[in-house]
Amino acid sequence: MTGASPRSTHAPHPAWLPDDAFAAIGRRRVVVAGDGALAGTVAEEVAAATARFGGAFSRLEVGDGVADAELVLTLAPPLDEPIETIRIAAGSTPSAGSTDEGPATRHDDADESFRFTREAGSVVVQAPTDIGLLRGLFHLVRLGEAAFEGPDADETHAPATDLRMLDHWDNVDAHPTMGQVERGYSGGSIFYDNGFVRADLSRVERYARLLAAVGINRVAINNVNVNEHEARLLTDDLGDVVRIAAVFRRWGIRVHLSVSFASPIALGGLTTSDPLDRDVAHWWVRAAARVWDAIPDFGGFVVKADSEGQPGPFAYGRTHADGANMLAAAVEPHEGLIHWRAFVYDHRQDWRDRTTDRARAAYDHFHPLDGAFSGNVIVQVKYGPLDFQVREPVSPVLAAMPQTRIALELQVTQEYSGQQRHAVYLGPQWSQILGFRFWEAAGRDGGSPTVADLATGRGKAAEDPGTGTWRKPAGGFAAVSNVGDDEFWTGHPFAQANLYAYGRLCWDPTLDPGALLDEWVSLTFPGEADAVGQAVHAVLDRSWETYEQYTAPLGVGFMVRPGHHYGPDVDGYEYTPWGTYHFADRDGIGVDRTVRTGTGYAGQYPSPWRETYESLSTCPDELLLFFHHVPYTHVLHSGKTVIQHIYDTHFEGVARVERMIGAWSAVSTLVDPRFSERVAERFAEQLRSATEWRDQLNTYFFRKSGIADERGRSIY
Amino acid sequence: MTGASPRSTHAPHPAWLPDDAFAAIGRRRVVVAGDGALAGTVAEEVAAATARFGGAFSRLEVGDGVADAELVLTLAPPLDEPIETIRIAAGSTPSAGSTDEGPATRHDDADESFRFTREAGSVVVQAPTDIGLLRGLFHLVRLGEAAFEGPDADETHAPATDLRMLDHWDNVDAHPTMGQVERGYSGGSIFYDNGFVRADLSRVERYARLLAAVGINRVAINNVNVNEHEARLLTDDLGDVVRIAAVFRRWGIRVHLSVSFASPIALGGLTTSDPLDRDVAHWWVRAAARVWDAIPDFGGFVVKADSEGQPGPFAYGRTHADGANMLAAAVEPHEGLIHWRAFVYDHRQDWRDRTTDRARAAYDHFHPLDGAFSGNVIVQVKYGPLDFQVREPVSPVLAAMPQTRIALELQVTQEYSGQQRHAVYLGPQWSQILGFRFWEAAGRDGGSPTVADLATGRGKAAEDPGTGTWRKPAGGFAAVSNVGDDEFWTGHPFAQANLYAYGRLCWDPTLDPGALLDEWVSLTFPGEADAVGQAVHAVLDRSWETYEQYTAPLGVGFMVRPGHHYGPDVDGYEYTPWGTYHFADRDGIGVDRTVRTGTGYAGQYPSPWRETYESLSTCPDELLLFFHHVPYTHVLHSGKTVIQHIYDTHFEGVARVERMIGAWSAVSTLVDPRFSERVAERFAEQLRSATEWRDQLNTYFFRKSGIADERGRSIY
Repeated sequence: MTGASPRSTHAPHPAWLPDDAFAAIGRRRVVVAGDGALAGTVAEEVAAATARFGGAFSRLEVGDGVADAELVLTLAPPLDEPIETIRIAAGSTPSAGSTDEGPATRHDDADESFRFTREAGSVVVQAPTDIGLLRGLFHLVRLGEAAFEGPDADETHAPATDLRMLDHWDNVDAHPTMGQVERGYSGGSIFYDNGFVRADLSRVERYARLLAAVGINRVAINNVNVNEHEARLLTDDLGDVVRIAAVFRRWGIRVHLSVSFASPIALGGLTTSDPLDRDVAHWWVRAAARVWDAIPDFGGFVVKADSEGQPGPFAYGRTHADGANMLAAAVEPHEGLIHWRAFVYDHRQDWRDRTTDRARAAYDHFHPLDGAFSGNVIVQVKYGPLDFQVREPVSPVLAAMPQTRIALELQVTQEYSGQQRHAVYLGPQWSQILGFRFWEAAGRDGGSPTVADLATGRGKAAEDPGTGTWRKPAGGFAAVSNVGDDEFWTGHPFAQANLYAYGRLCWDPTLDPGALLDEWVSLTFPGEADAVGQAVHAVLDRSWETYEQYTAPLGVGFMVRPGHHYGPDVDGYEYTPWGTYHFADRDGIGVDRTVRTGTGYAGQYPSPWRETYESLSTCPDELLLFFHHVPYTHVLHSGKTVIQHIYDTHFEGVARVERMIGAWSAVSTLVDPRFSERVAERFAEQLRSATEWRDQLNTYFFRKSGIADERGRSIY
Repeated sequence: MTGASPRSTHAPHPAWLPDDAFAAIGRRRVVVAGDGALAGTVAEEVAAATARFGGAFSRLEVGDGVADAELVLTLAPPLDEPIETIRIAAGSTPSAGSTDEGPATRHDDADESFRFTREAGSVVVQAPTDIGLLRGLFHLVRLGEAAFEGPDADETHAPATDLRMLDHWDNVDAHPTMGQVERGYSGGSIFYDNGFVRADLSRVERYARLLAAVGINRVAINNVNVNEHEARLLTDDLGDVVRIAAVFRRWGIRVHLSVSFASPIALGGLTTSDPLDRDVAHWWVRAAARVWDAIPDFGGFVVKADSEGQPGPFAYGRTHADGANMLAAAVEPHEGLIHWRAFVYDHRQDWRDRTTDRARAAYDHFHPLDGAFSGNVIVQVKYGPLDFQVREPVSPVLAAMPQTRIALELQVTQEYSGQQRHAVYLGPQWSQILGFRFWEAAGRDGGSPTVADLATGRGKAAEDPGTGTWRKPAGGFAAVSNVGDDEFWTGHPFAQANLYAYGRLCWDPTLDPGALLDEWVSLTFPGEADAVGQAVHAVLDRSWETYEQYTAPLGVGFMVRPGHHYGPDVDGYEYTPWGTYHFADRDGIGVDRTVRTGTGYAGQYPSPWRETYESLSTCPDELLLFFHHVPYTHVLHSGKTVIQHIYDTHFEGVARVERMIGAWSAVSTLVDPRFSERVAERFAEQLRSATEWRDQLNTYFFRKSGIADERGRSIY
């Protein structure tokens, strides 16, 4: 039931960085110019590639000529300087990264931009910092031969936000029920092995390199549910964090820690963790000082407070702003950040009480606090109001805090989307979320901010009557990682594509998820990209929709087995305190979240969406049961009744899985046999599980509604 | 959720053996005569009691006079000798127990009978063996002053069966999901502490004394699900078993081990555990010889084979008789027993398949093997065809194997009956099962065997046309223990009464469960027996029925949360592979197990019950949904519809819990405050849980049926 993969003695799969991904660079004459630790990383990568593929590599010293180079990678700000200067004397300008202090003392967010020029097939990548140079290198890797082909070009690349983070829900001590990695489906932790930080961090190094290649620049290395042992990473076990941070630093990635709000009690021996208590504040000031003394480029703290049993400021009658700002003051001298999760709700709700709506909770708690958070607090908001369901409306909190740094939180680990046993490519879901505009109808683009804009601080606020434009504080992106010590990193080899797409969308949220699949395929299967790519597209392009088809219908969510969240159980959460109900009876199903007759959740959206969701006639089909309770005979915009939609999508979902399997089988012999074996094993489970979902869901609703399938298919 | 109680540093509660329980003996002039280890135990008990309460104790030497004794406890066979002989010269006849070998070499089942005589207030207990003497001592303890009052008496007491066993589902290593004690609700194990047999076995000694006082004479000390570490009790860790056996021996209790059928592979390094393989048989012969060498009065092996994932003979195409008889041959030279569980079914059933019926499985597997088992194999049969539900029909296997030693298996631990958080006295359920007659209609007594008769080998078979009578081989009783290292032994202090009643019913299955409650109260609360007794009766007399009222209705069973089995989840097992379904739809509910239209299970009973259960018009209400699928509007014998019965019993069940709490509150200050606190804490949880059951069940069936409560009470 855990989906954990057996430990393998094989070397980890190279994922999107097989040696052949460097062939285009490796065949050329390359110069790397500039100092700084990451320029050294770039030079090592290029040296290895040219050695392997027969190219030539030189590390530029000041004054060396680079006239015959096909590729120059160089630190040379500013970017708008004429390119000829660079080509002739790369590195002659002192670079931002080339200081005597070294990278461990870089506190602020470095400029990660780079300039790419191509002139008669000769390419220069110049960057103002060594981290920008690393980004440029992997840009070339992604382009492959295309980097050197085509017309002359001069492009400047920069990320949409400096905050591109992965959260690891890894436990130092394997948790009695949650295991080594909470909601992890890829074996053990790459960081920890039942009570200890691993002595051998070579796997972490490989991971950091993969993340660098997709642009991730921050990682939180322990679970947001902070247990006793994990709390000590902040104090007694800080030396282990130093070791891990040193590995990530080589790849331009800063380390964050999840901390317990009760640390002053648990670790400091105080009797309180009241954020307004002076001793508490001082304890955090000292704790932060120790961390930054040891790790000068440390990122900050992630906090899950007053959530699902975690301690928080509510115990002392304080607000979440009180709690977050006290921590923010402690880390501010070090330019540290506080990621404060907005995932706060009553997880001990009475299922009998229809007036309490968990979906409302984050908005009700946080909207009133807009403007109250310090400048280095980021409020981290899950994409939907519930919990990473395969279909939820976009969280209205994202639109409700114009004066607050908001991070959009996604979930790369497939907790509710097949747990890396099912092939589900989440790129399209994330892309849809990132592109959602709160202040415009679906499909319109009148320039109002998208969700990506709101997270990256580049939005235009429709509500700002004064100027019509403002720059919103930026919080960036965070997501729960899907990796473990599994041979393929992610359990299901295809789940690598999700990690890949997440990193790339953080860099540029407007990227097309289908094109990202192409990138992933061409890097991962360099020799067989065409045929394998076709098959991967056939399998993954619509896999999110397929998963939605055979699981909970029309946005109603959950219906999973309680606890582990794998497999169907329609009533599994229906009579629990968790606040996730569907209210199905013999006549109908769905949650009335309208303002007029329901919980009022729809009113948390700005216009036009509050009206769109409020009305049964305009609410999109895919979210119908999230917003409305309707009879099984209600006719959807699609023209089908709800009950027939349930039957049809569940049969269709399984049929699609069968077609996915067929598409893959045509190319399965073209890839590494172990890769194929793993995919085959996962497909068998996906088909079994999808069939189980289909039959349970159909049977449940047939027994309840008594309405037969129009097409007379088997329902039990 | 686990129901485990926090560990306490307090001394364990004395349960039914507080010092004051010995007052009547302790005040008198007592002589204990006779040798043997258990006579020594008796003497120690009496010496302590007389020292405490001011009586006089003497240990008789041969030739001593006993004329002035008020109580003589003596080894003096035969029991039909004139009592005067005993009174004058007790101990002058060599006793069965007084051998030089000592008790460790007693292999066979010793005679546990004793004779009780009272003449002018002077009492003699004589017994042919020292174990009989120990039984007689505790008979006096139970009687208290009444032993010495009233008219002259001359009674001989003997147990209904020599086989009165408790099975402990304790794990040496705490199991990742099942914990230290599988289905244990009383803290940790008294035997093991996460990986080790406890160095301090004083708690086991106290436990053995409590068991001796109620007549238990065999214990299996490890879980029937035998994991890797536990398997080694048979070999490497045998020395620990020797230590435990030595403790129990002092109290006339023999130790058994649960063993894995795959032991020859796991422990012996063989490649097979095929019961017909010579090496396998020889391995078991040697293993048995080693055990009996170390523990000459060892009892035998308990085996759960081919059940819920445990290994068994099916893997080799062999029958359960093949498997059991191979083991039986290995233990036969040592007069050992094999308890072979009949709990065999397909736990990977497809819920879509309505032709497979788990209730049929034990009969289908074992009935054809009647007569094929060796004489020292006992087939251990759970009381119902499913799994210890609060209401099941009595298992037809009990009637189907006239040539087989059958043990009736009960469950003292309250897995499905409130997990020792709910006050549920199971004595009435067990009494009803023990008194059930397969060959006669309810309430009749034409002399046909009861279930107790079938287990104790004293039945008359209605089906035997030749003589009308036969003596059936006896298998006795077994039950799963409910104790742990909890301060009160059993989590809920009232759950002590279940352990008490089980032991006493094993000795005499015809005892009245209400009278056993009186015994338990008068021993446990010697100073406050009247008022406390009234309250205990008000709480416990109908508590089984109360629990049934607020949980799954009309014999349909389950509806519990999967895995831990606590709390309601109507559909929790409905779409699982476990074979426990209710088939509720919008029109009706229940499982058709008739011969005419259902699974045929009803046909496994002899007449008249096969006809009684087959017909909707004669099937008892309380088992209606076990045997029939009916509309919610079906009218019960009670005159109520099924749906109104569900509503009424669920409201009534909670009201009864409230009355139980009221009854206890009147006396709660009369007992030890810690006892009262624990009871109060459990009552609060019982009321919460019963209310949850009521509301979930009522809501589920209201949503499904759409039929309103006649009385308009709150349904959600």
